[in-house]
Amino acid sequence: MRALTYAGANQTPVLKDVAKPELQKASDAVVKLKYSTICGTDLHILKGDVPTMAEGRVLGHEGVGVVDAVGAGVTSFKVGDPVLISCISACGTCEYCKRGMNSHCASGGWSLGNTIDGTQAEYVRIPNAENSLYSVPEGVDEKALVMLSDIFPTGFECGVLNGKVAPGGTVVIVGSGPVGLAALITAQFYSPSVIVMVDGDENRLEVAKSLGATHTATPDKAIEVVKSVTDGKGCDSVIEAVGIPETFHQCQELVAPGGVIANVGVHGVKADLHLENLWDKNIAVTTRLVDTTTTPMLLKMLAARKLPAEKMITHEFKFEEMLKAYEIFGKAGVNKALKMLIEM
Amino acid sequence: MRALTYAGANQTPVLKDVAKPELQKASDAVVKLKYSTICGTDLHILKGDVPTMAEGRVLGHEGVGVVDAVGAGVTSFKVGDPVLISCISACGTCEYCKRGMNSHCASGGWSLGNTIDGTQAEYVRIPNAENSLYSVPEGVDEKALVMLSDIFPTGFECGVLNGKVAPGGTVVIVGSGPVGLAALITAQFYSPSVIVMVDGDENRLEVAKSLGATHTATPDKAIEVVKSVTDGKGCDSVIEAVGIPETFHQCQELVAPGGVIANVGVHGVKADLHLENLWDKNIAVTTRLVDTTTTPMLLKMLAARKLPAEKMITHEFKFEEMLKAYEIFGKAGVNKALKMLIEM
Repeated sequence: MRALTYAGANQTPVLKDVAKPELQKASDAVVKLKYSTICGTDLHILKGDVPTMAEGRVLGHEGVGVVDAVGAGVTSFKVGDPVLISCISACGTCEYCKRGMNSHCASGGWSLGNTIDGTQAEYVRIPNAENSLYSVPEGVDEKALVMLSDIFPTGFECGVLNGKVAPGGTVVIVGSGPVGLAALITAQFYSPSVIVMVDGDENRLEVAKSLGATHTATPDKAIEVVKSVTDGKGCDSVIEAVGIPETFHQCQELVAPGGVIANVGVHGVKADLHLENLWDKNIAVTTRLVDTTTTPMLLKMLAARKLPAEKMITHEFKFEEMLKAYEIFGKAGVNKALKMLIEM
Repeated sequence: MRALTYAGANQTPVLKDVAKPELQKASDAVVKLKYSTICGTDLHILKGDVPTMAEGRVLGHEGVGVVDAVGAGVTSFKVGDPVLISCISACGTCEYCKRGMNSHCASGGWSLGNTIDGTQAEYVRIPNAENSLYSVPEGVDEKALVMLSDIFPTGFECGVLNGKVAPGGTVVIVGSGPVGLAALITAQFYSPSVIVMVDGDENRLEVAKSLGATHTATPDKAIEVVKSVTDGKGCDSVIEAVGIPETFHQCQELVAPGGVIANVGVHGVKADLHLENLWDKNIAVTTRLVDTTTTPMLLKMLAARKLPAEKMITHEFKFEEMLKAYEIFGKAGVNKALKMLIEM
């Protein structure tokens, strides 16, 4: 089969023929991919930021497809079933899975396109298939569905839920990339009174407005805008969707007493925490790797046409054009790119 | 009346005659002090760390006494009533008070011995008396009661509640001073399976053992001890009760995936937050100034003999010996000192 494989840090990945994956355990399934996409995390991998990724391994942790084979222990899925692949593989039985922390599953977590072969290929083996695949509801747009492998549960769980977005509350989301926009869309499930979107890219701010942002600001104006719409208090929910010290620092200036800074960004280095200002502010800083425990709810919202996930897709490519898709996605600003839809 | 007044940064405070306070508003009360004490925060003030404190102002935010006068708007208390003074004065009607964030009261918060005259005096004016004084239950030890002005609600609210201490959970408290020990005692309300106390002072670790710590460790052994009693995972609840970058950093090494670092310490400078390690660990860092919203519950526990608050008192002084009390408290380690009880 054809697959895109990692070629080492700062190397162009290689699109080539590799062996089709086979069932290894009774709890495995093999899925034939229909659609996949590229994540910001894949760009981190290509830079060498993810040491658990090995040369020659297939990239990708998002996708939609059809079940091609199931192990003897898999009873919820059968060959031919259309399925959504979760970016998190979970056994469902370990201590962490029992607490809903699937991301920390003792025999899974984020393994696809990281510690095992991923979804940027014609076929992928899914371990612990019962808890790592989801049935596709009738009539959903399978292209939009790919957005539920990672970015929607990530924006919702790490941003909206951790950020305690609430009716009438005030929200600022620092970073209007795909995950920040997914947080923007899902924050509206809880009817906040204000959602300020912050980004240096004017196009992304325009998209944010069209998706429900009440206010937008470039980073240099963020404090001014937030203070002006919150009686000078700052926001109750501050969602960090970038992952660098500068944006994390700005979040500390945007949070109201009693508020939460919900970190979503993937950080490569430490950041300053200004405890000399924050120790008495009754705030929380939260971190989380997506657990995808809300995927069933998000699927219902997608089926009910209440989740405009398709709006994240700005570009479509055939799988053989994968390197071009990476190139466009790598220069997202210039290309007004959000998510690349890859058709297998 | 006699009062201990602030004389500026790094100056010895002055015990002298000052005017007895009078009612200023209908919501005020004046309380004749019976007992007071000294807080670590008072030592910060003497170093000049609290810029809102003015020269000549009376120190202190803890105390027990008898109502000496009440304004026309005060209906819950009358002259002669024995009362506990809360370190937090609260109007009960502003936006923050309505949310239970009394510490951020728009017309109060921590004002005693900070923005207005405090409790290290024969008499003190208490603004918003209805929400800032508490009736003393029958038969409680009034010396032990002073410990409920600040350290017990602080240890409980900022440490135990924010730290989500839970039955069967694992707890580590970094810092075994009075507030850390108050957290240790009140953590046991929730029946955790493990409480590790960390301090550089062996005497305080002995006290911690006598008060219910399951394990103790000096800072250099803290990680080793915590890992050994938590299957290598770290603790669910990590309570920071010191307030310096080094201890806050250690807390980040002690927290389990899914855990909380509950900051209690008063920090004067920023600290490093190692988001490169923590971004995917599903943890929270919380901060809080005590709201004293749990004081009624703590009073019930004291009355029920389930809160050994008296064990915090290591030294007793008459008010005229106040400067000696500060001297002993300032060298707490050498003097095996926890709380100084001051009798007026």
